[in-house]
Amino acid sequence: MNFCDIALQSVTQLQPYVPGKPIEELERQYGVTNIVKLASNENPLGPSPRVLAAVQQASKSLSLYPDGNGFSLKSALAEKYQLELNQITLGNGSNDVLEIIARTFVSAEDEVLYSQYTFAVYPIVTQAIGAKGVVAPAVDFGHDLDAMANLITDRTKVIFIANPNNPTGTYLAADKLEAFVANVPQQTLVVLDEAYVEYGDQDVDTMSWLAIYPNLIITRTFSKAYGLAGLRVGFALSNPDVADLINRVRQPFNVNSLALAAATVALTDDDYLVETKNTNDAGMKQLTAACDAMGLAYIPSKANFITVDVETNANEVFEALLQQGVIVRPIGGYGLPQHLRVSIGLESENQRFIDTLATILGRT
Amino acid sequence: MNFCDIALQSVTQLQPYVPGKPIEELERQYGVTNIVKLASNENPLGPSPRVLAAVQQASKSLSLYPDGNGFSLKSALAEKYQLELNQITLGNGSNDVLEIIARTFVSAEDEVLYSQYTFAVYPIVTQAIGAKGVVAPAVDFGHDLDAMANLITDRTKVIFIANPNNPTGTYLAADKLEAFVANVPQQTLVVLDEAYVEYGDQDVDTMSWLAIYPNLIITRTFSKAYGLAGLRVGFALSNPDVADLINRVRQPFNVNSLALAAATVALTDDDYLVETKNTNDAGMKQLTAACDAMGLAYIPSKANFITVDVETNANEVFEALLQQGVIVRPIGGYGLPQHLRVSIGLESENQRFIDTLATILGRT
Repeated sequence: MNFCDIALQSVTQLQPYVPGKPIEELERQYGVTNIVKLASNENPLGPSPRVLAAVQQASKSLSLYPDGNGFSLKSALAEKYQLELNQITLGNGSNDVLEIIARTFVSAEDEVLYSQYTFAVYPIVTQAIGAKGVVAPAVDFGHDLDAMANLITDRTKVIFIANPNNPTGTYLAADKLEAFVANVPQQTLVVLDEAYVEYGDQDVDTMSWLAIYPNLIITRTFSKAYGLAGLRVGFALSNPDVADLINRVRQPFNVNSLALAAATVALTDDDYLVETKNTNDAGMKQLTAACDAMGLAYIPSKANFITVDVETNANEVFEALLQQGVIVRPIGGYGLPQHLRVSIGLESENQRFIDTLATILGRT
Repeated sequence: MNFCDIALQSVTQLQPYVPGKPIEELERQYGVTNIVKLASNENPLGPSPRVLAAVQQASKSLSLYPDGNGFSLKSALAEKYQLELNQITLGNGSNDVLEIIARTFVSAEDEVLYSQYTFAVYPIVTQAIGAKGVVAPAVDFGHDLDAMANLITDRTKVIFIANPNNPTGTYLAADKLEAFVANVPQQTLVVLDEAYVEYGDQDVDTMSWLAIYPNLIITRTFSKAYGLAGLRVGFALSNPDVADLINRVRQPFNVNSLALAAATVALTDDDYLVETKNTNDAGMKQLTAACDAMGLAYIPSKANFITVDVETNANEVFEALLQQGVIVRPIGGYGLPQHLRVSIGLESENQRFIDTLATILGRT
């Protein structure tokens, strides 16, 4: 019995997402210690003490199911963003909400539109359904909104736009993005993935667009600036009718109870967010200055990572860095075989990467 | 714009799973305190100290993504069950693996077979895909394997069998179950959902069947006997080829890092499992004796709950119990409008339920 014969054909052709290499795996494979991981755009500060206290408190009840409606976290989100509870869908990370949005609206006969060089989860969730993924060519490594607009058809159910974009860090100006959203037909949903929004311009209020464009969905995550990647919690904000539909596909207990407790506290942990932004700004200066000094080009980034052109086979550089205990992310799978994506870490971590890269490339 | 017009038709008809009422919700709605929750088949012992220590240790790293391959937990499972790592699929609770099994193999043109009075997630995951759910009539509130065998067609992709069954607690003998599995055509997958297996006969080794029947998948959970419902972790064991396909549909970080750490420790926490079983056995005796004394019939159960015929509208009894701070589960949605499903709690919790029910029914 070949089980591929009875699986969905789209599933048999699915290439799973390749995550950043975990530290323990590098330790097992290479016997390296003192590892620096700058591969998954995690918050280098580690969890905040307030969050840890909330986790410890909530862990006393971990034999009980989570609140499937996430009342406390939704209430905190609704207050922060001045929205109603029925506009919120919680996810097991924003990956989960991205997937359930697709599964709610997209059939095998439909199209999903996204850009070249964008988050790998968009093509994966599209292909898992067996829908047609339509890729708009990028401009300057970022979204080309004109090209995207021209590719919308009457079968386009969902458009995914990451802003800032991953893995390139590029950023669309608010006025251009809003003009694009305004022109998308109402029967096509625009998913604005703001996983990295806290690192960009803070004065843009995309939330206010939700009242104007009923086909807009904004997704965010607690995995980046909020420092909760291990706990898995993200959310979608939308028109209540859209949220009602998405929530029907959501698994009833998709967000665990410690994640709910941690995220509720993290949302008000302003000091941690400020320190996160300051650390990132300083690290971004440190890394771009080092690239300039080495004569390496990089893509201007508004996120917590920077994507560097190493002018050679980036996989080989990635492997050489691994040997020295430095994990970054090769992005050949995204069609960028000479680029490495480097998460911004603490000053010492950034310096370790810079020094190791300079030695490997002979640019000391 | 009516967004139901652009959603999948199967999704617009989906009735979401109704979870047991959370304690905080009852507090908010009724202003009741000192609440006893016997509604979600949770472990009344609370988390074990060894698990809490593991959670506290792992929480230091919660700003890092979980190991997407779950290496440590899979290694512990492989050792305990004498299987290979590539036979294991981890899930965000067993709900997650049940769903991704369906999404891997079942299209809108296929059929999924399950029994009357069985776990609500089977029809939900079937309907979300738009596949046809085929329901075999139950016998004595449990699975009628002959009726199920007769309903298999060449479009039956998956058969879900919960053993012990939820919400009735009924139990299929191993010899009859194996005979059924042996006769299912190889192109039809049998999912044996053993969420409650730790409460039943411990001398049945269904794991050994995996080597004989390549179309068999066994699912288990850490939410019941292992006491980790809040953390969300379950798993599927299968033929490696089947596991490879299911894992492609799995979200890359579907199990959070604290769940991975807690489950790895829980798997070896034999004292906790023994105490769980002893508490359950004693509580089962306490509850069945009380039902006998009240002259109420119940369905013989091999799980950590008992389903009682209250001989009247069970929803009204459920509401009356709520008013007194006792949460149980009405199962009218399962087609059993005069039954209440009651989780087995600590002795004092069971007694509180018994006394309150006796008063409400006038059977003191």
